[in-house]
Amino acid sequence: MKNICLQTRRTELLNALDGQTAIIPAGLPVSRNFPANQYPFRASSHFLHCVGLNLPGAILVLDDQGACLYVQRPDADDALWHGARPTVREWSQALDIKTGYLDELVYHPKSMVLPAMDGQSNALLSAELNRPISGGRNDPVDDPLAQAMVASRLCHDQWAIDQLSRAAQVTAEAHELARDRLHAGLSCQAVWAAMLSYFQDHGMSYAYNPIITPAGEVLHQHDLRAQLRTGDMVLLDVGAETESGYAADVTRTWPVGQTMSPTQSAIHAVVSAAHKAAIELIKPGVEYRAIHRQACLTLVRGLCDLGLLIGNPMDLVEDNMHTLFFPHGVGHLLGLDVHDMEDLGDRAGYAPGRRRSELFGWSFLRLDRPLEHGMLVTVEPGFYQVDDLKRRFLNHPYKAQFVNWSELDAYSDVRGVRIEDDILVTADGWCNLSAPADDARMVKR
Amino acid sequence: MKNICLQTRRTELLNALDGQTAIIPAGLPVSRNFPANQYPFRASSHFLHCVGLNLPGAILVLDDQGACLYVQRPDADDALWHGARPTVREWSQALDIKTGYLDELVYHPKSMVLPAMDGQSNALLSAELNRPISGGRNDPVDDPLAQAMVASRLCHDQWAIDQLSRAAQVTAEAHELARDRLHAGLSCQAVWAAMLSYFQDHGMSYAYNPIITPAGEVLHQHDLRAQLRTGDMVLLDVGAETESGYAADVTRTWPVGQTMSPTQSAIHAVVSAAHKAAIELIKPGVEYRAIHRQACLTLVRGLCDLGLLIGNPMDLVEDNMHTLFFPHGVGHLLGLDVHDMEDLGDRAGYAPGRRRSELFGWSFLRLDRPLEHGMLVTVEPGFYQVDDLKRRFLNHPYKAQFVNWSELDAYSDVRGVRIEDDILVTADGWCNLSAPADDARMVKR
Repeated sequence: MKNICLQTRRTELLNALDGQTAIIPAGLPVSRNFPANQYPFRASSHFLHCVGLNLPGAILVLDDQGACLYVQRPDADDALWHGARPTVREWSQALDIKTGYLDELVYHPKSMVLPAMDGQSNALLSAELNRPISGGRNDPVDDPLAQAMVASRLCHDQWAIDQLSRAAQVTAEAHELARDRLHAGLSCQAVWAAMLSYFQDHGMSYAYNPIITPAGEVLHQHDLRAQLRTGDMVLLDVGAETESGYAADVTRTWPVGQTMSPTQSAIHAVVSAAHKAAIELIKPGVEYRAIHRQACLTLVRGLCDLGLLIGNPMDLVEDNMHTLFFPHGVGHLLGLDVHDMEDLGDRAGYAPGRRRSELFGWSFLRLDRPLEHGMLVTVEPGFYQVDDLKRRFLNHPYKAQFVNWSELDAYSDVRGVRIEDDILVTADGWCNLSAPADDARMVKR
Repeated sequence: MKNICLQTRRTELLNALDGQTAIIPAGLPVSRNFPANQYPFRASSHFLHCVGLNLPGAILVLDDQGACLYVQRPDADDALWHGARPTVREWSQALDIKTGYLDELVYHPKSMVLPAMDGQSNALLSAELNRPISGGRNDPVDDPLAQAMVASRLCHDQWAIDQLSRAAQVTAEAHELARDRLHAGLSCQAVWAAMLSYFQDHGMSYAYNPIITPAGEVLHQHDLRAQLRTGDMVLLDVGAETESGYAADVTRTWPVGQTMSPTQSAIHAVVSAAHKAAIELIKPGVEYRAIHRQACLTLVRGLCDLGLLIGNPMDLVEDNMHTLFFPHGVGHLLGLDVHDMEDLGDRAGYAPGRRRSELFGWSFLRLDRPLEHGMLVTVEPGFYQVDDLKRRFLNHPYKAQFVNWSELDAYSDVRGVRIEDDILVTADGWCNLSAPADDARMVKR
């Protein structure tokens, strides 16, 4: 695979490093219940961004000599157990990159490292570099390298957009397949089986553990054991991942048996309006937090129209009343990671100098940057009835007055609704990568 | 789930520990590409053996106070993000075990630990116990505890047998489903999608990364990208795992399009005869290495009959000639791990005082113990044409003479054949858990 985009990425990173040495390990397979029984290997996203292949144990080095990919040396047992491994020469020709074997790699003590997510890789590198390599969310990483990587991955090139479009399309198709199958008595596990099978038939895997649940109000409900019942609304947050690691992230909320109750239908329409209004605001230069605010405002306006909230919508958003029903952020960056570059903390999601708000709801916003051409973001407003949150608002001396609590009781068959699409920021607007192919909203402007 | 078998296991382990303290952690979820994006959690098999549930982060302590399960304390965010967690009181009632929160756990400095497979859990425990906790294949573990666990897990109780039977049956059914679908143009990935979907529809996951390949001679060929072609034999080594962690491990080799060539059919019959002869020897007291030898001998006899090997079958096995076509061991222990307790090295597979042979072929035998009532073992003879091995034998001054090399050329359409079933050692014979339900070989004696 001679991929000109990968070469360009490496060259630009090299230039940004200004002569310093960077180590970008793919990582090692992670053991499940015993050493030889491993989870399916998935290379570090930083490595995939530069090399495009899941090569266990490989390390990319960028230094004043250029880019060099170090791979495991084939050993005598390979033929019997794993099949013959390519030689460095074969790798070099296939990937158009300088290559070497890992045992030839000499570590520069001042190298910067972007750790992989597995502890074993980091421990090995720590030992070889003779200094700690961290990998956790709040750990310090080598900042100039992290910043260079954020700059390189923030806006997607053509190859990435092709991959992300394929992931989003296959994901949208799997959601439609699931919608047509929902019926009482089906388990959420069986819905997942059908969707995963569709991904695999298209040569893809999944980007994150799925949420498929009638209990949509539990935001990270990964338990798939529930059986669907007539009257349920099912929230499906499921995304494919291409072989090269690119993710989709799509949510739909559908009724079991294809008919919503009037209350379910009303709330679904409100969330859909918020989703549409937020997307339509997207273009380069617009602040993502304005997208979030637009979703909040449209949602609150709809809930006022239904008589569930009482007051002026702008004031209600100012008072953070939307968080009663919509506590999370409206979306995030999407790319090789479903929350792209979240391993680097908020370096990617937040513009330099910005920090997360401490205000409930806004504190969960994962993205606060002006949008740029080539960014891919999710837009995913929702409506949830979380008992714990309702209690907090009901008992709040000021906030309780803005809710028509008796009217809300009539909506008890709406537990959680979310609608999420993958929106590419184009030169002068947006393109919905996860819309059905015949949907007029696919390309705007 | 009040499970009397789990209680008995804990009590017997407690008795075996003779007042010493044992720590058995479930382990923590392992990150995939960023901290919040994790592989599906699977608890340590030692923990599952004693508790039966996949409880992330939980720790079982066995000491002179009895058994106590420590679980994560619910926090304020649970209701919103994960749903309400059970309290210790609820866990205690559900599992009929003494419980506490992890932050109440006081570590005994001399505790013995059975590490989980993830580095993070071990690092946390190391820090708390103030001594290194290892987890690798060759690392020392706390031996009295490891030996007690081997004794507890080696022969399966009724609940384990029920679980293992379900896993084996669903696996056998998935293999038949795959067999009926194999056709030219299908990808191995699509075959896997169908089998995994069948597991998931039955509330199960998979016990190990599947092997589904026309290149059956590569023993651990996990690449699923190949497309099936007319004339291929497909080797499928695929097993389900129940929700409580019990594994199946079944291999079938089938032709694309349901007709084998005469050469494929002849070799398949030889492997099948070896499989059958090996199984029929199984009963308590028999050495597993005799099962292995029986498979080798039957295989060699069949290959002599086909004119591929030349000589007396007993002498050929003595000369290790079977390893040209059958280099691996005939099977291994099966239970919560597909290679049961392989995280403890050869403690489980090899009787005390025994060590692996250094002889090629025999060195890969994972089990060398007298069989006991309640053990579950795989029986999986095979025939492979590995170019590298053939070269070694062809160039061997003594061994080359025993092979009819020109006759062997006629068998080039047989790359790899393996047949594997999961055989329970009964009181006076065996029971094939993975045989089709209507197969007369299901129960012997």
